[in-house]
Amino acid sequence: MSPVDPTGRITLEHGSGGALSRELTEELIYPLFEGAEYPELSDASEVRLDGRSYVTTDTYVVDPPVFPGGDIGTLAVFGTCNDLAVCGARPLYLTVGLVLEEGLPIQLLRRVLESLRDAAARAGVHVVTGDTKVVPAGKGGGIYINTAGIGRVTGEDRLSPRRMAPGDRLLVSAPVGAHGMAILAAREQLAVAGSLRSDCAFLYPLCRALCGLGADLRFMRDATRGGVAAVLNEAARGGERGIEIREQDVPVAGAVAAAADLLGLNPLEVANEGVLVAVVSSAAGPAALELLRVHELGVGAAEIGTVTAEHPGRVILETTVGGRRILDMPRGLLLPRIC
Amino acid sequence: MSPVDPTGRITLEHGSGGALSRELTEELIYPLFEGAEYPELSDASEVRLDGRSYVTTDTYVVDPPVFPGGDIGTLAVFGTCNDLAVCGARPLYLTVGLVLEEGLPIQLLRRVLESLRDAAARAGVHVVTGDTKVVPAGKGGGIYINTAGIGRVTGEDRLSPRRMAPGDRLLVSAPVGAHGMAILAAREQLAVAGSLRSDCAFLYPLCRALCGLGADLRFMRDATRGGVAAVLNEAARGGERGIEIREQDVPVAGAVAAAADLLGLNPLEVANEGVLVAVVSSAAGPAALELLRVHELGVGAAEIGTVTAEHPGRVILETTVGGRRILDMPRGLLLPRIC
Repeated sequence: MSPVDPTGRITLEHGSGGALSRELTEELIYPLFEGAEYPELSDASEVRLDGRSYVTTDTYVVDPPVFPGGDIGTLAVFGTCNDLAVCGARPLYLTVGLVLEEGLPIQLLRRVLESLRDAAARAGVHVVTGDTKVVPAGKGGGIYINTAGIGRVTGEDRLSPRRMAPGDRLLVSAPVGAHGMAILAAREQLAVAGSLRSDCAFLYPLCRALCGLGADLRFMRDATRGGVAAVLNEAARGGERGIEIREQDVPVAGAVAAAADLLGLNPLEVANEGVLVAVVSSAAGPAALELLRVHELGVGAAEIGTVTAEHPGRVILETTVGGRRILDMPRGLLLPRIC
Repeated sequence: MSPVDPTGRITLEHGSGGALSRELTEELIYPLFEGAEYPELSDASEVRLDGRSYVTTDTYVVDPPVFPGGDIGTLAVFGTCNDLAVCGARPLYLTVGLVLEEGLPIQLLRRVLESLRDAAARAGVHVVTGDTKVVPAGKGGGIYINTAGIGRVTGEDRLSPRRMAPGDRLLVSAPVGAHGMAILAAREQLAVAGSLRSDCAFLYPLCRALCGLGADLRFMRDATRGGVAAVLNEAARGGERGIEIREQDVPVAGAVAAAADLLGLNPLEVANEGVLVAVVSSAAGPAALELLRVHELGVGAAEIGTVTAEHPGRVILETTVGGRRILDMPRGLLLPRIC
């Protein structure tokens, strides 16, 4: 049987480095990435990079690997590209490291790799090299994917929470919490699952637009694990400023709010894969919001709070009922394998 | 309890993206890589790259994670750096992606990260960014590590099997099969385990020396999974040349030969982590061997065969008893999780 028989499954020998490894790579993986740069079946590939570049890496272990709105292949491209984009870097190159569990259906692998290829094309990045390992049944999670990304800086400014100043405005580019709630609902087969969809998206176009603000753009971050709450806390701490958030201004889709409410979760702590948090000068706030809202991914953008000189390192939430409380780094476990 | 209590274990919450993730990163990981470039706890880091660079990635899933001669941390640095080195590139930057299994002892994690740090220092590479995921017990293998590496090309020539010509000589830099046999013996607790030790090493110094041969150096490759047999087959196929190997000239350490013989394995098919195969012009053969042998890692270097115009794409082994047979890509599974 061919190792890429559509009814087949991954075996340990596909990871041996021998004949079956080669067949898997040549018959399934390379054809999907032809035109991409895997020269001579080489372990390393040449790239051209000049000037300031950014490098990032993430491993994706999301469960289930296929979910409403995307799959682990999409996530492995967009997630890593977004980490470059929020630094003001245009994503250029990706490496892909697969950890496959013995028994994984070849059809699922193919589907995920096709998504990965399509997402890379959408993001305009080249998959330049890769690696495939197979682990015994019971030692993996079906499929794990590591991607490392390299991008070139397009602007002059180094974005950093340290550039935040009192009065600066905090924006989110889209309603929050959709990815985490979609994964949770799909995994636990909740009744609301049909109405929830991951926000998984490529954020570079939004980031590029905001970079046009020049020095008025202080800092951007995609709000993944730990949600917006984690990003705000890291920014407050890194910039040694206070942050105040108005709960009533935080956009949350109806289905997400309902599901989160049902489960006692705070949408601000739920993971996103297509939402960025941006901090801009007070003067640039309205323009920044407009730059986001003209873009398909940013139509639901909102200003949610401000940077303060008071309580440096802390995030304060003005609740919808008029109270004030600290919004801390999330504690406790929402759920594992969210991305 | 602190998440980095030395008697502690990894919990799912260490991968949550929240407070415990931050504590793990700040209290255990960052202090080990201080001086390395993890600016501002950022997901992406800036690097400077000009001209021709090479990029590579590998995920390490070796079992056991600690073995005679090294551990998964050492391997994750040297293995990836070697993939750059054999392209003639000086390794410069590494990314590190950890997949930790719930229950992993913190002490083991610390040991592995210390090895990783020490290996990076030894190789002169900077760990510039990283990512940590935690998977539930039963969904991982203790610790898996992905590293992606970026290196700068130092020479003018693009090394490739396509540059091989009839009469060219094949060299190995050290006795073969030690890594695979050491892992197998450690995992299966074979009686010979005490005498076996992984050859895990940083090969750039050897590669750099050989690059001094200029156009007389055709091609280099580190012989990892699938061993020397896999490298030779890929070279023969990629270069559309024949290769003839003299079995009696292939260096194999006594303990490795004995263990392989006992288990019915061919040392040419066993994984190495510190052995490179080089193809050089006939005229440069003696000089190449001398360049290798003056180096500590290359004292056991040997010329093992030649490139031929006959039987393109095939590797022929002249056996010690005077026969000739095809040395094919390894089939069957030596053992999973070898690197």
